[in-house]
Amino acid sequence: MDDARSRLLESTQELLWERGYTGTSPRAIQERAGVGQGSMYHHFSGKRDLAAAAIRQTTEEFLPGWRAVLAGPGTPLERLEAWLRRERDILRGCRIGRLVQDKEVVDDEALRGPIDEVFSGTIGVLAGLLREGQESGEVRAGIDPDQVAAMILSVVQGGYVVARAHQDPERFTAAVEGVLALVAAPGR
Amino acid sequence: MDDARSRLLESTQELLWERGYTGTSPRAIQERAGVGQGSMYHHFSGKRDLAAAAIRQTTEEFLPGWRAVLAGPGTPLERLEAWLRRERDILRGCRIGRLVQDKEVVDDEALRGPIDEVFSGTIGVLAGLLREGQESGEVRAGIDPDQVAAMILSVVQGGYVVARAHQDPERFTAAVEGVLALVAAPGR
Repeated sequence: MDDARSRLLESTQELLWERGYTGTSPRAIQERAGVGQGSMYHHFSGKRDLAAAAIRQTTEEFLPGWRAVLAGPGTPLERLEAWLRRERDILRGCRIGRLVQDKEVVDDEALRGPIDEVFSGTIGVLAGLLREGQESGEVRAGIDPDQVAAMILSVVQGGYVVARAHQDPERFTAAVEGVLALVAAPGR
Repeated sequence: MDDARSRLLESTQELLWERGYTGTSPRAIQERAGVGQGSMYHHFSGKRDLAAAAIRQTTEEFLPGWRAVLAGPGTPLERLEAWLRRERDILRGCRIGRLVQDKEVVDDEALRGPIDEVFSGTIGVLAGLLREGQESGEVRAGIDPDQVAAMILSVVQGGYVVARAHQDPERFTAAVEGVLALVAAPGR
């Protein structure tokens, strides 16, 4: 990939994480990338086009690590535990979830679409794990896998929010341990 | 309260909700409030001072409605249900939680402090409700009230994020119904 193009994408990914879409100016992207305005508009038609490509790249980078855990070795409950307990840079927040706080992002299919795909895909995989775990008896019977899957992704996303507000990753840890205690079948 | 001052505060509250702290410029605040730059700097020393007052006002406006439900009539589980199921403008997002996505907010005690107070207070009240419910037998025994309280607030905060990503309030509803099914003692 062209070096200026790749620096523009990487700088946009970082700035979107730190400052969100609304808070990121084309000028800040150019400055961080060390790329002139002419070069930026040679590669991308504008901030929205560049952000759409950056968000797509972020979600693609995110998928392999996520799949390795949730579709990895172990029983369904072990995979859920591994995913919920895996190391995260909690206080930096979720670089995907933080984007949907921006009205400009949720109002724009090109920006929101890749985020929705990751989230909806995650809920689908979690629901499958919960069903499988119910069949094998390690996940609590009688709960709705689709509801609890939506709940689990919400705990992760909200765990970042609550931990950042308190500036303490322990808030995230408490929340996910709460999930695991509730989701495991009694005696597990 | 002075009319210009109150319009400045209200405009800042709205813009913080829509655009976040980083994405809100002093000029946008003045334009929305219909107040000149001189008047703004007469009332507030700058954007940060104004945002701190606006966040404090938002958290104060939020408290009575919240207390009325969580400390209202009904058993602990009924109060928890009423709080989780109460009407919310889901797709607009949480005007308190969205703020901590901004690095400038979490790095600044004057901006983060009021948010942390509301969240920590909510976790404390939820943990108390869960304990009370465990004693009366309507909340599942054997779960850690502090962990599950952190989990519940995270579900609410993350429920907004996940629902906005999918542009469907049903995602929030599914997540909170998942909580209620898990937290209620069997047979309730």
